[in-house]
Amino acid sequence: MTDLRDAPFDGLLLGAHLATLDGAQAYGAVEDGALAWRDGRIAFVGPRSALPADAVGSAREVIEADGWVTPALVDCHTHLVFAGDRAREFELRLQGATYEEIARAGGGILSTVRATRAADDDALFAASLPRAQALLRDGVATVEIKSGYGLDFETERRMLRVARRIGETLGITVRTTYLAAHALPPEFKDDADGYVDALVEWMPRLHAEALVDAVDAFCEGIGFSPAQVRRVFEAARALGVPVKLHADQLSDLGGAALAAEFGGLSADHVEHTNDAGVRAMAAHGTVAVLLPGAFHVLRDTRLPPIEAFRAHGVPMAVATDCNPGTSPLLSLRQAMQLACTHFRLTPEEALRGATVHAARALGLPDRGVLRVGARADFVRWRVQHPAELCYWLGGHLAEAVHVAGRRIP
Amino acid sequence: MTDLRDAPFDGLLLGAHLATLDGAQAYGAVEDGALAWRDGRIAFVGPRSALPADAVGSAREVIEADGWVTPALVDCHTHLVFAGDRAREFELRLQGATYEEIARAGGGILSTVRATRAADDDALFAASLPRAQALLRDGVATVEIKSGYGLDFETERRMLRVARRIGETLGITVRTTYLAAHALPPEFKDDADGYVDALVEWMPRLHAEALVDAVDAFCEGIGFSPAQVRRVFEAARALGVPVKLHADQLSDLGGAALAAEFGGLSADHVEHTNDAGVRAMAAHGTVAVLLPGAFHVLRDTRLPPIEAFRAHGVPMAVATDCNPGTSPLLSLRQAMQLACTHFRLTPEEALRGATVHAARALGLPDRGVLRVGARADFVRWRVQHPAELCYWLGGHLAEAVHVAGRRIP
Ligand SMILES: [Zn+2]
Ligand SMILES: [Zn+2]
Repeated sequence: MTDLRDAPFDGLLLGAHLATLDGAQAYGAVEDGALAWRDGRIAFVGPRSALPADAVGSAREVIEADGWVTPALVDCHTHLVFAGDRAREFELRLQGATYEEIARAGGGILSTVRATRAADDDALFAASLPRAQALLRDGVATVEIKSGYGLDFETERRMLRVARRIGETLGITVRTTYLAAHALPPEFKDDADGYVDALVEWMPRLHAEALVDAVDAFCEGIGFSPAQVRRVFEAARALGVPVKLHADQLSDLGGAALAAEFGGLSADHVEHTNDAGVRAMAAHGTVAVLLPGAFHVLRDTRLPPIEAFRAHGVPMAVATDCNPGTSPLLSLRQAMQLACTHFRLTPEEALRGATVHAARALGLPDRGVLRVGARADFVRWRVQHPAELCYWLGGHLAEAVHVAGRRIP
Repeated sequence: MTDLRDAPFDGLLLGAHLATLDGAQAYGAVEDGALAWRDGRIAFVGPRSALPADAVGSAREVIEADGWVTPALVDCHTHLVFAGDRAREFELRLQGATYEEIARAGGGILSTVRATRAADDDALFAASLPRAQALLRDGVATVEIKSGYGLDFETERRMLRVARRIGETLGITVRTTYLAAHALPPEFKDDADGYVDALVEWMPRLHAEALVDAVDAFCEGIGFSPAQVRRVFEAARALGVPVKLHADQLSDLGGAALAAEFGGLSADHVEHTNDAGVRAMAAHGTVAVLLPGAFHVLRDTRLPPIEAFRAHGVPMAVATDCNPGTSPLLSLRQAMQLACTHFRLTPEEALRGATVHAARALGLPDRGVLRVGARADFVRWRVQHPAELCYWLGGHLAEAVHVAGRRIP
C-alpha cells in the first residue's frame, strides 16, 4: 500500500474553511483548511499550513475554493420513487375537504399505489429522477429510497430497481429499503396477517436480486401491529439484512424499543417514543431519525423526546422523508431548517444529523465526516458560517457537490 | 396603433397550461393555452385553438413548453440589501442564549446596521445581489427592497442606490421603499422624535434622486409610535409618495387603520389587526401583506385575521420579508408554502397573493396576471398542477423566467 504522504493527490482543495464534523468540538472546524483525496478517499484533511511542502505542486488537480466545505449530506429516509402527485389533495385539504371527501376524490396513499402500479419502469424512473436530482443539487450524495407504494411483488421490485437505476444515473450512492409493510393493499383488505405472509415470502426473492439493503415497516394503529412487525423483522434477520422502523409517530406502540431489540439501524419519526424506548435505543446503538417535514406539513405538536436522546447519547439524524402525502420535501437543508425551528436542534446538531448520524443510520461508517480514509464526498457551500445551512429557507447554496472526489455536474 | 391581431408576435408560447389568475374561476386556468407578446406586453392569451390561423408561422419566436405558466411572481416586501449575516445569532438562540447574551455578542438589528454602514457600495451590492438572484431563480421578476439598515442619510441612500443597481443588473423590476423609520440609531438613543425629525428631512432629498417609490415605517412598541408614524406619513403625502406600514405584528397599535387612513398601499404582518383595522383596509383598498416567514422563524402563534380579510374582501398578498433577523427566506415559493401551512391559505390564494395582489401592494396594476396588455412577465414551471408551487419545500421548479417576454438567464 502506498504511503499516503508520498503519492501525489488526485485532487486538492484549498481556500475554504472545513466543517469536518470529526470530533466533538464545534463543527470539527478547520479554518483555512486543505482537503486532498486519492482513489476516491480523503488522503489529507487539516490546516493548509500543515500540508506537505510539495503537495500543491504534485496534485493532479487543485481547486481554489472559498466559503465552507462539509461532508456531503446523507438523506437516510425517503420515499422518493413514486408516480402521480398529491398536490391536488393538499389543495383539497386547504379548501376544507374532509378526509372522506379526499378519499372519494381518489386521494390518500392508495392513490399513490394506484399511480405507481400503473407506471412502467421508464415512467416511474422519469417521474422520480428529478426528485433525487433536487436533493443532489442541495448537497445530498447518499440517499436511502424505500419501496412501499407497490404492495405487490412486481411493483415493489420495480420501485427498488428504479431506485438502483437512479443511483447509477446520477453517480450517487442509493441504499434501498424494502418497505412492503407500508400499507395494506386492496387485495388483502381485512387480512393484514395474510399480507404479512405474502411480503415475507417476497423478501428473499428481492434480496436474491440484491435489491434489499435494509427492511422497514410502518408500525402504527393505522399500519402494522408490533406482532406483525416482529414477523417482518424475523424474516429480515434470517437473511442477515438490517432493519429500521417507522416508529411511534402517531401513538406509542413501543416501536422504537422493538427496532432496538432487533439491533435496528434506526427508529424513525419517534414523536411518541417513551423513556424505555430511548433507553433501548441507547443500549443497542439505534439512531433516532427525526422527520420534521411531516411534523411541519401535518402541523403536529408532539415533539420527539430530544432532551432524552441527548441525555442518553442517542444519535439524532435528520431526513427529508420525501413523500407525496405528508412530506413533500425536495431539500435536506430545508429539513435541517425545520429541525432547528420546530425541534430546536442546534444548527450543528442538524448538520451532524444530516451527515455523520445519517450515515450511521444507513450502516455506512465510511462517510458523513471529513477524515483521512473516509469517502471524498463533500460539498462546497457559498456561506460565511456553517450555521447558514440551517438558517436560510430556499436559495441555492451548494456551489458544487463532489462524490469520491469527482465533481457531480 | 397597430391592430394586435394583425402584427406578428415577438414571441409565442405553446404547449403549456396557463394559470392566468384573470377572473375568479380556479386559477383563471386555460388548458393547452397559447401566450403571445409584442413589445414586452401580452398580445394574446387563451386556448391554443383560438389562435389566429397564421400566428404560429409569423411569430418571431415560438417556444414549445409544457407544465404550467403563471404570471411572474412579485415579492412585495423584502429587506434584502444588507451586509453581514445573523446566522451566528440564530445559532446562539438555538444554543439557549438569552437576548441579553445575544446583544452582548453583538447581535440584533443594530449589528446589521453596523455591518451595512461599514460596507462600501460594491461590498453591499456584492453581498445583496445573490439574494435577489435566488428570488429570481425561483420565479420573482418584481421585487420591493426597503432601506432601513442605514439609519443615517448616507447609508440609507447607499442602500436605495444598491437596490436600483440590483434591478438594472438582473433586468428585473425593483421598487424602492424608504424605511429609515425601522429602528432607532445609536446617535439618537432616547430621542425618537429627534430621529423622526431627521429622517423626515432626508426624505425629500432622497426622493429628488428618484430613490423613493414608497415610504414605510415600523409601528410597534419597540419601533415607532402611531404619532411618529403619522409624521412620517404626512411627509410622504407632501411629496405625493405612497405609504405602507409594518403594522400590528407584535401588538395592536391600530397600525393597519393608520395605514388605511393615509390610503396606504398595504399594511404588512397584521397578526394583531382588529376588526376596525380590517374594515378600514377594506374601505381604502389597502392590501394585507402576510409574512409567514417571520411567523415561522419566530414560532409565532397569533394568526392574522384571515377569515376577516376574506369576509371583507381585503386582498391578501404573500411576501418573503427577506431579512437577516427574523425571516431568512430566499424563495417566495417557500413563503407561499408557509402561508398555506401556517395560515391555511389555499394554494390559489397563496399564488394570487404572490402575483396579482402583491402587484397591487406595489401600486403596479400592469402585472401579476396574464391578460392582454399586461407585461409579459411570466414563469414556466415544471409542475403538473399549480398547487404544486405551494406544495413542495425546496426543489427548483422554475424552468424559465421571462421578463417583458425575454427569458432571463
Ligand atoms: Zn417515511
Ligand atoms: Zn419587514
